[in-house]
This record gives sequence, C-alpha cells and structure tokens, in this order.
Amino acid sequence: MKEFTTYKNTSTLSLDEKLLLQQISTLGNIGIEGRNKGRTRIALTDDEKLGRDQVVTWMKELDLDVKVDSIGNIFGTLASNNNENQAFMMGSHIDTVKNAGALDGCYGVLAGLAVIRAFKDAKVLPSRPITVVAFTNEEGVRYQPDMMGSLVFAKGLDEEVALASIGTDGTILKNELERIGYYGNFDSSKLVPFKYLELHIEQGPVLDADKKEIGVVENLQGISWQKITIEGKANHAGTTPTRLRHDAGLVASLINVFVRDIALTTGTTLATIGSLDVEPNVINVIPNKVTFTLDLRDPNEENLLEAEEKVKTYLQELEIQEKVKISTQSLARFKPVEFDKELALDIQNSSDVLGFSSQRITSGAGHDAQMISRIAPSAMIFVPSLDGISHNPKEFTSDEQLIKGAKVLLDVVLKNTY
Amino acid sequence: MKEFTTYKNTSTLSLDEKLLLQQISTLGNIGIEGRNKGRTRIALTDDEKLGRDQVVTWMKELDLDVKVDSIGNIFGTLASNNNENQAFMMGSHIDTVKNAGALDGCYGVLAGLAVIRAFKDAKVLPSRPITVVAFTNEEGVRYQPDMMGSLVFAKGLDEEVALASIGTDGTILKNELERIGYYGNFDSSKLVPFKYLELHIEQGPVLDADKKEIGVVENLQGISWQKITIEGKANHAGTTPTRLRHDAGLVASLINVFVRDIALTTGTTLATIGSLDVEPNVINVIPNKVTFTLDLRDPNEENLLEAEEKVKTYLQELEIQEKVKISTQSLARFKPVEFDKELALDIQNSSDVLGFSSQRITSGAGHDAQMISRIAPSAMIFVPSLDGISHNPKEFTSDEQLIKGAKVLLDVVLKNTY
Repeated sequence: MKEFTTYKNTSTLSLDEKLLLQQISTLGNIGIEGRNKGRTRIALTDDEKLGRDQVVTWMKELDLDVKVDSIGNIFGTLASNNNENQAFMMGSHIDTVKNAGALDGCYGVLAGLAVIRAFKDAKVLPSRPITVVAFTNEEGVRYQPDMMGSLVFAKGLDEEVALASIGTDGTILKNELERIGYYGNFDSSKLVPFKYLELHIEQGPVLDADKKEIGVVENLQGISWQKITIEGKANHAGTTPTRLRHDAGLVASLINVFVRDIALTTGTTLATIGSLDVEPNVINVIPNKVTFTLDLRDPNEENLLEAEEKVKTYLQELEIQEKVKISTQSLARFKPVEFDKELALDIQNSSDVLGFSSQRITSGAGHDAQMISRIAPSAMIFVPSLDGISHNPKEFTSDEQLIKGAKVLLDVVLKNTY
Repeated sequence: MKEFTTYKNTSTLSLDEKLLLQQISTLGNIGIEGRNKGRTRIALTDDEKLGRDQVVTWMKELDLDVKVDSIGNIFGTLASNNNENQAFMMGSHIDTVKNAGALDGCYGVLAGLAVIRAFKDAKVLPSRPITVVAFTNEEGVRYQPDMMGSLVFAKGLDEEVALASIGTDGTILKNELERIGYYGNFDSSKLVPFKYLELHIEQGPVLDADKKEIGVVENLQGISWQKITIEGKANHAGTTPTRLRHDAGLVASLINVFVRDIALTTGTTLATIGSLDVEPNVINVIPNKVTFTLDLRDPNEENLLEAEEKVKTYLQELEIQEKVKISTQSLARFKPVEFDKELALDIQNSSDVLGFSSQRITSGAGHDAQMISRIAPSAMIFVPSLDGISHNPKEFTSDEQLIKGAKVLLDVVLKNTY
C-alpha cells in the first residue's frame, strides 16, 4: 500500500504554524538561564545535548531516517519516490552563544521540520529525499573554528583535526561528542545535497530598518578571526614612569581604536574585539599580558585583505613603539561567498507569489550555508530581527514574520522537489 | 635580676644578617605558585594565614608581646625600661598581590624583627617600647580600599565599615578574619606611636637608575582609584554597522588611550587601567558591558584633581558620542602626603654615617606609612628595586642592599630609642 502521493499542487500543503512556534519555544527553554539572561546551549555541553535529544525526538515523530555523523551533525531524512535522487537539504544549527535568543539557528532547523510535516500531513511524497540537518558547533564559542560541522561536512576541514580541537575549557571535542552520545557512525561524506537552503533571522538591522519581510541573501561577507596576544611587563602602577611602561592593556586599547578607524574609513569593513582577558588583572599592576580576539569582516575580499594587512603593519609599529611582544594566531578565515543565483531567484519568486515584501541582502554573519556552498548550490532566506539585535536575550522576530519565512521556505522546497 | 641594659653605644648592636635573609626566603615560600609565578598571599586567604602564623611564631621567639586588633593588624612589642613611653613603631605588611615578589612589605616587617633581635642579642633595653607591626590588607586586591589595616589603625576609616567590606569573591572581610583566626580583641586605638618608620623596596626604577643605595622618602603621591562601568549593547559582530554600535569595549579602550595622553602631557600624573573585565566576552559579540579600574596618581593634589576632572568630562562626552551608560565609583582617594622632616633627616644622617649613597625621593606607591602619618611623625626608607620591577615574580633587590637598608633602619631606631 502506498501511503504517499507525489507532489502535484502546492495548495495541498500547509504548515502547522502553531506547532512550529511551540517547538521554537520548547527548544528555547532548554538551557534557559532565567529572566533577561536568555538561554545558553554552547556546543556539546549538557544543555546542548538536551537540545539535540529534543530535535531527534521530533525527527523520529516525523518518521524521518535519523543519522548522526562522526562530527555530530544530525540528519533527518524524509524518503521520496526516488531515493536515488540527491536530497534537497534544509537546516541550520541548534547550538547557541552565551545568553542567546531562541531563534538563531533553531528557527531554520525547526522550520525545516515544519516543511517536512507539511508533506507528511498532506501525504505527499517528494520527487527527491528531503533532509533537515542540525550542524554541530556553528557558533564557535567553545571550539574553533565556528561553522565547524558544516565545514567538515563540506570537506573544508579534516574531520580528525576538528575532532582534536581543544575547547576554551581544555576539553577535546571528540571526547565531548562521545560523552554526550553524539559521536555518530554515519558516513556523511557520500551525502552530497542537490541544493541547500537555510532559513535564518537576519541578526542585523537592515530588513527591520527598511521594513521588508523577506531577505533574499545573495552573498555573505568574508570573515577573518584572529587571536592576538600582547606581552608587556607587569609593574607597579604607582612607580613606573609612563615612558618606561610596557602596558599590554594600553596596546590592546590602541589596537581597538585603530580597527575602529579602519571600519569608519572603509565603511564596509566591520571590526570587533569581542573577547579580551587581562593578566594579572589587578588594580595597581600594569597588565603584562592581554589576549584578545579580533573579528574582521567585509563583503569584498580585497578590502578584507587590506584590513588584515593594515592591522599587521600596526602591530609591528606597536611592538617597536611600546616595546611589547605581539603574536597572532588565525582562528578562522573565510572568503566572501556568492550564493546560488538560481536558488536566490526561487526565493525572490516565492516571496513575490506569497505577497511578501523582500529585498536582496548581504549576510553579515557567517552561516552554515556558506560552507555548504562549497559542495552544493546554496542560498539563504532571512526574516527581520527587531533592531538588528541578536546574540542577546533580546533577540526578537514576530511570530507573523517567522511564519512568513517558513512559508517561503516551504514554497522553494516544493519548487525543487517536484 | 635585670637582664637588659639601656642603650649606650650603637656599636654594641648588630644585625643577624643571615637570619634576616633566611626569614625573607622562608616567608617568601609561603603561597609559592611555582617557577616564574612567584607567590600569592592575598589578604585573609589560607596562604596569607600561614604567613601570619609564621610571623607570629617569629615574634614569639623574640619574646615580644604579640597582640592582634579587630582588623587583624599584628603588633609585636619589645618592652623598654619605661613602658609608659610611646612606642617607636616599625613595620609594613605581609599580604601580597597575585604572583608577587618576596620583598614588597615582608622586607619591612622582617627587618623590624631583625632590629629587635639586635637589641635582644646585645641585651640592650630601649628607652621606649619598640613595636613591629604587620598591617592587614595593604594591597587591596581582594578588599578595598588598600592600606586598610593602617587606615583603620590611624582612624581614617571606621572599623565597622572596613569589617563589612565585601571582597571581589563575595566574602565579607570580618568573616574571613574570623575564619583564619585573626579577628583579634586588642584595642589598638590607644596605641599612638611616638614615630613610625617603614623600610621598603622602592618598587620603582629611580634608585636603581641613579645607582643610589638608600632612598630618603620625603613625600608620597596622591592616589585616586575608581571603578568605571560602561554599559553598551551586545550585538552580532558581523551584522551591526559601525555607526549603530554601542561597544563598551571600544569605549574602555578610548578611555585607556585618553588617560595615557593625560600622563604624557602632564609628565607627573600616572594613569593605569590594571583590571578589566568584558561581558559577554565572546569572539563575535560586541561587548555590552566592561568594568575596569582606573588608578591615577600625582605628587601634586592640584594635578590629581585636574586629571580626575578631565576624565569626568571625557566620560560625559563618550556617553553622548557612543550612546553608552557610564558609571563611576570611587574606590580610594588619598591626597599626597608629606613625611616628617626630622625623621627624614635622621634617615639621611644614618645613611651618611654608614657610608651609603642616598637621595631624596617621592614614593610613587601607596604605603602604610602614609596612613600612620595622620597620627604620628612618619617616614620611609627605600632600597633599590632592580629595573623598578615589583608586583611581579621578577621583583629583585640584592641581599647586600637589603642588609644596607636594615642597617639604616637599626641606626634610626637607635637614635630614637635612647
């Protein structure tokens, strides 16, 4: 007995909107830290394991074929009437930064499940398998580089190297995967998607400011992450003449001001010192060591290279001027990415057909889609973030907007799984 | 039977140099953190208790009358032939910063014991009691303000307020004093010293640079400590345009560069941001909160006030310019101190008589002597610090120099205890 029919008419498929919003809320409550603190589900922690377990449970409720590969990526696949066809893939990630909102990543994974649910509910069988994926460690808070699971999946990072990553807490990634039970045995290297589509909140202010409902993501900024260590000399704050100081904290401050100037001058480059630690961190001792991260981004590779070069030259000047030792370590480097034009056009058309306002947009954040674009035509759908706030408990997109984004996702999937 | 004689001739008294150096080394090994990390005996911790116990043991070996007051100051007194006379007081502190050298504070306390030992060994009775004191929490690492024990002793800070101080680790000072057994019952308020003399390493580069053996400390810089909190807005590092950022980390950096400019412009002001913490401290999140300490010093009160005023105005400008909220809290404020001219002259003369090279000097660091100068004529003797390094495991003064300083101390004590 064949329970499913092949896809005929989009009108037969519809989202269970309420359940999608409910699942976003349920997943968002895992790792919750209390009022105004959002949730924290950093990759491969106990709380993130609970999030994974919840997603797997939901995948199984949809009778998906659930597989976990050895970097911990979770794949849930709806069979088609021709399982030899390459799967259409949707997804994102469910790990979070510290004190995060509920939407970053999770929205894309759960909207993917909602799309599959629409097929199931309508008893429609797609023309190719549809896979929803939750990639491991997109945020890169504990283990670097970020977007690790999708990068390994796209063969951009050797799996063994990734598994040996040492976390900020000294743990080894493979041990943590094993500990939480997500060191899987699925060989994902043979799973090459037909196309990859990621629905995500913008995490930036553009759509909200321009009052647009859907962002058709055409491309993605290049990203350069480095760790910079300044070694100066600890000395008494009250007795060391200014000219004899080798103040690692001051040098870090000069660099922060310098990269802000680069950002203001170019207008396209973004520069952020997000993490910074001072030693010995005592009120009356000149800092002898400061370690910090520098995050540079630009949609244009030449501009990004130029910013990196300016920083490098300035660090050399500071070494001489302040008599400190400066070392740098690249944590991640990704060139700007152009997304698939055809898939972007599908998004544009679906949005138009559904009557939503839209605009073409560049993604400022890194996303798993940029990794998958190495092996499959990829694109992204954005929905607005209120005031552009993300990586913050105040991250917000209205339920109405979340549903509109999921509708566009469903429509593009339908177009591609005839 | 009278065992002691009154002082007649300095030549009958001499220091046990070897024992003094040995005790400095023994005390320096308490709280040791391993190669290149020095020792850490932060006030009222378990390791500092061990240091206190050791000093008390040594005081008792010298048959001193050992008393502990309720802020934990330890007084060891050698009786005189007239115990109604005000005591001549020497001392310093034995708490340390994190990863400290062995000499800061400890040298002054142990040299005081060596001076008393010289009296004992020669069976000479002084004309007035001689007290060696180890003041509580001079460094101010865990509880603020620094120089707390001497400040309370000099009635510059209400004892109850000091006892209620909350540490950086959330502990209450009184509880910690009780826990380590140094919440004493001695009423030190009636103990007003005849004079107070503190022997200390310079903790600055002047004597070492000028190749002088003894520093006659004439005065001491004013100190202004404040805690500054910047509240900005956490946001995604890749999507937030530069002009829309409220980056608390950048604002802290601008302030660091600004105060360095004040220091360079005036030439007398010293400015240090020693301690700084970033929230949420994540690579790809714009810092929403930075808390840091600002240490300003100047030998001239007007200059210090002017520096404070400049900072205040700049913070107001930054609040508008960067749309952040800035709050400040004064942690400590001491005006510059003039030491006792007569006692300084005694130091100068003793140094000359002993054939040591010397120079008049301003103390850049805060010391317990500045507090005691509120209630008794006070002065300090400095010995050189190699390269001016202090508050660092590399802090170094040669044994020869340590002995020379203790000899001057002994000689000045003798002059004042005829």
